Amino acid sequence: MNNSEFIINSLGTPGFDSPLLVYEDMGFTFHTDEERVLLDASLENFLKCSRDGIIPPSFEKAGPRKNIFFNPAGTRVAILTSGGLSPGLNDVIRALVMQLYYRYNVTKIYGIRYGFQGFLKETQLKPLLLDPQIVEKIHTEGGTILGSSRGYVEPEIILNRLLELDIDILFTIGGDGTLRASLELADLIEKNQYPVSVISIPKTIDNDISYIEKTFGYETAFSLAVTSISGAHVEARGAFNGIGLVKLMGRHSGYIAASAALAHNDANYVLIPEVPFDLKGENGLLRHLENRLKAREHAVIVVAEGAGQEFFIDRGERDASGNIKLFDIGKHLYNEIIQHFKSAGIEMTIKYFDPSYLIRSLPATPSDSIFCADLARAAVHAGMAGKTSMVVGMWNTILTHVPLRLAISRRKTVDPRGSLWLSVIEATGQPLNMKNKS
Amino acid sequence: MNNSEFIINSLGTPGFDSPLLVYEDMGFTFHTDEERVLLDASLENFLKCSRDGIIPPSFEKAGPRKNIFFNPAGTRVAILTSGGLSPGLNDVIRALVMQLYYRYNVTKIYGIRYGFQGFLKETQLKPLLLDPQIVEKIHTEGGTILGSSRGYVEPEIILNRLLELDIDILFTIGGDGTLRASLELADLIEKNQYPVSVISIPKTIDNDISYIEKTFGYETAFSLAVTSISGAHVEARGAFNGIGLVKLMGRHSGYIAASAALAHNDANYVLIPEVPFDLKGENGLLRHLENRLKAREHAVIVVAEGAGQEFFIDRGERDASGNIKLFDIGKHLYNEIIQHFKSAGIEMTIKYFDPSYLIRSLPATPSDSIFCADLARAAVHAGMAGKTSMVVGMWNTILTHVPLRLAISRRKTVDPRGSLWLSVIEATGQPLNMKNKS
Amino acid sequence: MNNSEFIINSLGTPGFDSPLLVYEDMGFTFHTDEERVLLDASLENFLKCSRDGIIPPSFEKAGPRKNIFFNPAGTRVAILTSGGLSPGLNDVIRALVMQLYYRYNVTKIYGIRYGFQGFLKETQLKPLLLDPQIVEKIHTEGGTILGSSRGYVEPEIILNRLLELDIDILFTIGGDGTLRASLELADLIEKNQYPVSVISIPKTIDNDISYIEKTFGYETAFSLAVTSISGAHVEARGAFNGIGLVKLMGRHSGYIAASAALAHNDANYVLIPEVPFDLKGENGLLRHLENRLKAREHAVIVVAEGAGQEFFIDRGERDASGNIKLFDIGKHLYNEIIQHFKSAGIEMTIKYFDPSYLIRSLPATPSDSIFCADLARAAVHAGMAGKTSMVVGMWNTILTHVPLRLAISRRKTVDPRGSLWLSVIEATGQPLNMKNKS
Amino acid sequence: MNNSEFIINSLGTPGFDSPLLVYEDMGFTFHTDEERVLLDASLENFLKCSRDGIIPPSFEKAGPRKNIFFNPAGTRVAILTSGGLSPGLNDVIRALVMQLYYRYNVTKIYGIRYGFQGFLKETQLKPLLLDPQIVEKIHTEGGTILGSSRGYVEPEIILNRLLELDIDILFTIGGDGTLRASLELADLIEKNQYPVSVISIPKTIDNDISYIEKTFGYETAFSLAVTSISGAHVEARGAFNGIGLVKLMGRHSGYIAASAALAHNDANYVLIPEVPFDLKGENGLLRHLENRLKAREHAVIVVAEGAGQEFFIDRGERDASGNIKLFDIGKHLYNEIIQHFKSAGIEMTIKYFDPSYLIRSLPATPSDSIFCADLARAAVHAGMAGKTSMVVGMWNTILTHVPLRLAISRRKTVDPRGSLWLSVIEATGQPLNMKNKS
Repeated sequence: MNNSEFIINSLGTPGFDSPLLVYEDMGFTFHTDEERVLLDASLENFLKCSRDGIIPPSFEKAGPRKNIFFNPAGTRVAILTSGGLSPGLNDVIRALVMQLYYRYNVTKIYGIRYGFQGFLKETQLKPLLLDPQIVEKIHTEGGTILGSSRGYVEPEIILNRLLELDIDILFTIGGDGTLRASLELADLIEKNQYPVSVISIPKTIDNDISYIEKTFGYETAFSLAVTSISGAHVEARGAFNGIGLVKLMGRHSGYIAASAALAHNDANYVLIPEVPFDLKGENGLLRHLENRLKAREHAVIVVAEGAGQEFFIDRGERDASGNIKLFDIGKHLYNEIIQHFKSAGIEMTIKYFDPSYLIRSLPATPSDSIFCADLARAAVHAGMAGKTSMVVGMWNTILTHVPLRLAISRRKTVDPRGSLWLSVIEATGQPLNMKNKS
Repeated sequence: MNNSEFIINSLGTPGFDSPLLVYEDMGFTFHTDEERVLLDASLENFLKCSRDGIIPPSFEKAGPRKNIFFNPAGTRVAILTSGGLSPGLNDVIRALVMQLYYRYNVTKIYGIRYGFQGFLKETQLKPLLLDPQIVEKIHTEGGTILGSSRGYVEPEIILNRLLELDIDILFTIGGDGTLRASLELADLIEKNQYPVSVISIPKTIDNDISYIEKTFGYETAFSLAVTSISGAHVEARGAFNGIGLVKLMGRHSGYIAASAALAHNDANYVLIPEVPFDLKGENGLLRHLENRLKAREHAVIVVAEGAGQEFFIDRGERDASGNIKLFDIGKHLYNEIIQHFKSAGIEMTIKYFDPSYLIRSLPATPSDSIFCADLARAAVHAGMAGKTSMVVGMWNTILTHVPLRLAISRRKTVDPRGSLWLSVIEATGQPLNMKNKS
Repeated sequence: MNNSEFIINSLGTPGFDSPLLVYEDMGFTFHTDEERVLLDASLENFLKCSRDGIIPPSFEKAGPRKNIFFNPAGTRVAILTSGGLSPGLNDVIRALVMQLYYRYNVTKIYGIRYGFQGFLKETQLKPLLLDPQIVEKIHTEGGTILGSSRGYVEPEIILNRLLELDIDILFTIGGDGTLRASLELADLIEKNQYPVSVISIPKTIDNDISYIEKTFGYETAFSLAVTSISGAHVEARGAFNGIGLVKLMGRHSGYIAASAALAHNDANYVLIPEVPFDLKGENGLLRHLENRLKAREHAVIVVAEGAGQEFFIDRGERDASGNIKLFDIGKHLYNEIIQHFKSAGIEMTIKYFDPSYLIRSLPATPSDSIFCADLARAAVHAGMAGKTSMVVGMWNTILTHVPLRLAISRRKTVDPRGSLWLSVIEATGQPLNMKNKS
Repeated sequence: MNNSEFIINSLGTPGFDSPLLVYEDMGFTFHTDEERVLLDASLENFLKCSRDGIIPPSFEKAGPRKNIFFNPAGTRVAILTSGGLSPGLNDVIRALVMQLYYRYNVTKIYGIRYGFQGFLKETQLKPLLLDPQIVEKIHTEGGTILGSSRGYVEPEIILNRLLELDIDILFTIGGDGTLRASLELADLIEKNQYPVSVISIPKTIDNDISYIEKTFGYETAFSLAVTSISGAHVEARGAFNGIGLVKLMGRHSGYIAASAALAHNDANYVLIPEVPFDLKGENGLLRHLENRLKAREHAVIVVAEGAGQEFFIDRGERDASGNIKLFDIGKHLYNEIIQHFKSAGIEMTIKYFDPSYLIRSLPATPSDSIFCADLARAAVHAGMAGKTSMVVGMWNTILTHVPLRLAISRRKTVDPRGSLWLSVIEATGQPLNMKNKS
């Protein structure tokens, strides 16, 4: 009845009454698996599908279920955080523990140390037993109390350790790499028909996971980046022909750079991976920059770390998580700009800002913090209901269940013809394009 | 073809090419009025409507149009802010001016002083001529550079003044009262067939406008309220049997109280207008509070200003904007709690926080600031295209056009059976209800 | 050899080598009791005293001593916080524990609950055993983990409980009332010749302790108050003839009001207890206010809670700490202003801000936080050296020992003829005085 | 009568009544040049000097004088900012303008663009005419509205331009280099006997000017640096054997590094120019680091940019201001640490933070903001009184006049045997020294 790649896997028929059934007395409506959110909520699509008799793709709504798969009394749970830091990790951990403990009476909650590495016997890292007292205030600090890491661990090793620890549900909090590892694990579990659920919570500061409207950490990231852009603006204004250059996160997707630039309007140029640009030539950045200095005596450039990778020769290097090693576009721009103005005999001063580590280590904004806890509670509901191989998402502002396989099927990027990029163009006044005619 | 109350009024056929047509060369896709967002984006609704051959209600998408109604060269525009302060007002004013000036080359932009009062001859308040230099940095400050006011002004007076000033588009930034006044004005203009557009931008810190997913100022408001709740928690912890009581905004809708309570998890009880509660009796707040002090020695209560109005006898008093004067539930709770524990012979200390004025006077958070500018740019596109009697909104994360008449047809409130209130119940652990059995 | 009231009491001759003697190898110079800081550091006073052969008053310098009175191995210590909350309490507690534990190897550190009330048997409040792990992060939160209270407890009761717990050093963190109680206790101990040290750390957000240049919490308080003044300014600007009225802490001394007004320059009138003013009449505040509204259409007033008490009839009421109950000058001004303009037929809007509880419950600023830890470490050095009946202070930017009796001998107030008040007059441009000629 | 190098130069006998004489009616006491603050305020020094009949060195107190040198009616003033950015520059500019304009009725106030470069004819930079409206809100932003620059300009050129512009008082806001240039200029003016006053306001984020207790920008700088240290701590905790390395400002003096490390207690090692250390060997940093990782699995290092310069071979390079070009100790440490643990076969992760540009471009904290305005008002009083060749300072918490020649006679550094460094040692628990025995 539905596009199959949108269907959530299940460990089996839920056989226990949820301890949350009491909510029903208060008028709460429990969601069923039949309640779904349309992928495309446009009237045009409605008309087309309706006319053609097509059932359009849709996501299962998240939320508590009346019947659950695991018996709360004996359920054992593990939580891990993987990949780079992102604001909100501790919020998610906290809310997972609180929800499991107080709402489902699950008290065996293990925190795996340093991501998937914590499953390796040789690291001798023992899981932490988590409870409400331990996590009560952790969300006021950035980072993750569990520690994180990059690096591949064989799914067989993970599964063996899960079985040893007698874990029923594993919550993995991480980005693209973590979702891939989680899927591999879930596939192995399914193949072996173990009743172990794998539920992911999408952590990517870059906001680049497909079929998920926004990921936690992203709002905090662009909000905090605003300070650096303002700082760059102040430095640019403080010197004759001053240029402020800010490198922000965004390996493949320019969401942070675009949003941060929109927030306080100090940026004049935003460079993102999705929109190629030339440095030199008639319509290149350097020419525009030169004209702007003539007219306004200062300029601010925001560049996503993944922008302009086409300037470099790819040698295919990868980090421990298997991510392609990016070339340093920030330093490259910095050097090219200095070289250009030196050649042109134009006096100028450039200041370089790279606030990435600072941003990702800070606590989440209130709005992001709420989102983290919402995701975590939805993850607990899903796990207890016996769903698996899925990641909690959001679509049309509603919390959803997204199959892991679907979520990693492609990367979400800024649409150069969409409304976000239009906003950037209109707010910054930057040239509509900076590619030379070929 | 569509439910008529969702259709946007228009001043006539757009006869000018938009100066934004250049965007097309860059691959930008201009929206047409046929592109619409479904009100109900659930699969269930799709199936039902599709089966029954019903076309479901939907909103027109906002965005630039290829053809516009007003000739940019001579267009004259007025902007006003009305009602109580809200974070983001200056962001909206700034973005309106920047967009009109730089994108549509409209240079006659008048700022009406102190809301609709600025149209009264007797106030002798002259409009400010606004330009990019004046508004460049105003978003770094809270409040509104135009000033605001409450109080009814006859639409005839407003219209006469608009005609005198030869205004083509009036942008009104305000809440429920402002939208009502704007509709009355738009109706009068329509009756007289003047080519004057009235476009509203929804400012309500309470987030209580129907058919609009969120309003600007709201995220900032609940984000800033978090500090007061933390402060109340600290005060409560700092004294034996300490109680912290925080009154927040929310005349009819508990969004701010609910979201603020979710953000940092220091609240134990959240009281909102939509969820009635008893003070006394077996299941009343005071009894729960007493038990909590016994168990935990401290408690934090967050109350929306509109909660518990049923405790008072309504005398029908109204303020200058025509809003019902609310009774002071905060002070009432404060006194009732003190009285209760005094009678019960239980030592305790209570501290009262009312941060409302402080919150509403602060600048917008980065995320809210972006939203303000997005709304403003969409308002400019709509106004230039000759649309009228509408308010810019957001639905399913997409900017929309909402008829003023529809927007004021009912008030948006927190659904006591919905996911936001469920989050509050799960995060605070407060009793599922606090009404005595009758 | 010195003015006797500046001499610090001692429990006896220090008989143990300090564990800090290792510092000497590093070149650190240990202070001796002979190193003192002049009370009056002016050249004029030098010349006068030198000519007349007078030895001017001076304070003993704080810091580690080579020989200490208590044997670290067995020393038992108690800590309490008393009176209203102030930013930095947890910083002081944290640094006391860290310093005692890591530098002097003192591991028996008891936290008395809820101030002196924690000594009352009937409260059944058991002391907390404190260690580095417990206090590690407490400074990131406002308030006091020990709890606080007002209310007198007989020194005999306190002493008995100290003896029961076998306490060697009691650290009391509090303001004027706490210092008085500490002195009473120290006097009783001295009379009975017990080897128990009483060391105070001066907590008064009002900065009103004599012979102490600044107290912790004060800088944080006025820094945070700035936001409220800015908010009042925004509200005042946002309405026609808008007035923002901010009530700040300052029972007897206007330091917070004065400094907060200086910080961002939004205040037009600063009212403090030390500078009497009239409301009505030719030169009264209301007349000045009226003129200012005519000229500028808005005004911001900052009033210390202890200002204008002469407007009320004193009934001699006192709170649990024995402090005189102040009349509410904020509400009084609010009502008088409304009444005045109503009578004068002048339209205006007034908004009232009272951020006191919010301010005092927040964590300390970095600068204040450093100061708290400095005071705490100095207190530990003093206690271990066997000094008693003293409070740690600061004079000429140097940490000092101040006899409790001296510190409470009078209250520190803003000098209406001094440089702070001059700055206020020059920065605000408020009238040189607002008293009518008599 | 006084040590001659402490005596302030004067343009001549003040011949005009100050417009501030009205203050006298209010009881304000005007300072005279005879009121002075002792350099050494210790009792020991009093006794020694008194016994030996020596008059100890002292500073002239700042403040308004009854009689002034310049006739306010015609006085023309210039202001410039020079050197690197520092929080508070705009506060100083604002307060200079406000004080000159409103208190002394001086309305010819010129802002020189981009520091001393603004005096060069070839730059064609015209001075800005400053007034209260222009500067009203500039303190809410970082940086300097005048712009700044490095680079030497001949005093003759400056003087000629001052005479052309008919300037009576030049206020220079800058650090060591600016004070040197100001002295050179003042010397030239004195030689030529022009009645032009040169008054400096000490801007050095590093707090390294001698005979001046603290400089503006410094408190803001270390306060803001705290966030980076916390971020480094979070990153260090988030990875197995995580190391956070933070490079902070401090070319010759470690004040910022020391104070920032004290503020939130996340630093384990603080490295400053004044305290040499070894990297390798038995007692070197790397060995200590290795041991700490074994014990605690994470470490945070704070290094001042001027620390460890002895590891490099000085090639005597200098920047445009004539400052010695420092070697990059941050990157050096980063590489050495990675190399060390790689050689030792110990897995670890290191994250590097360099927040300097961000910090220096932000607005001043409230406390620093007050200080800036106090300095500026004192500078205006001094200039109007005809003092010259001096810098406004602070000593024993009192605003003072310091001869430029004295201020640049040596650099202020952290005393490795003093109380600040003791606090660092006690608070961080870092080794008493990290030099190998030789």
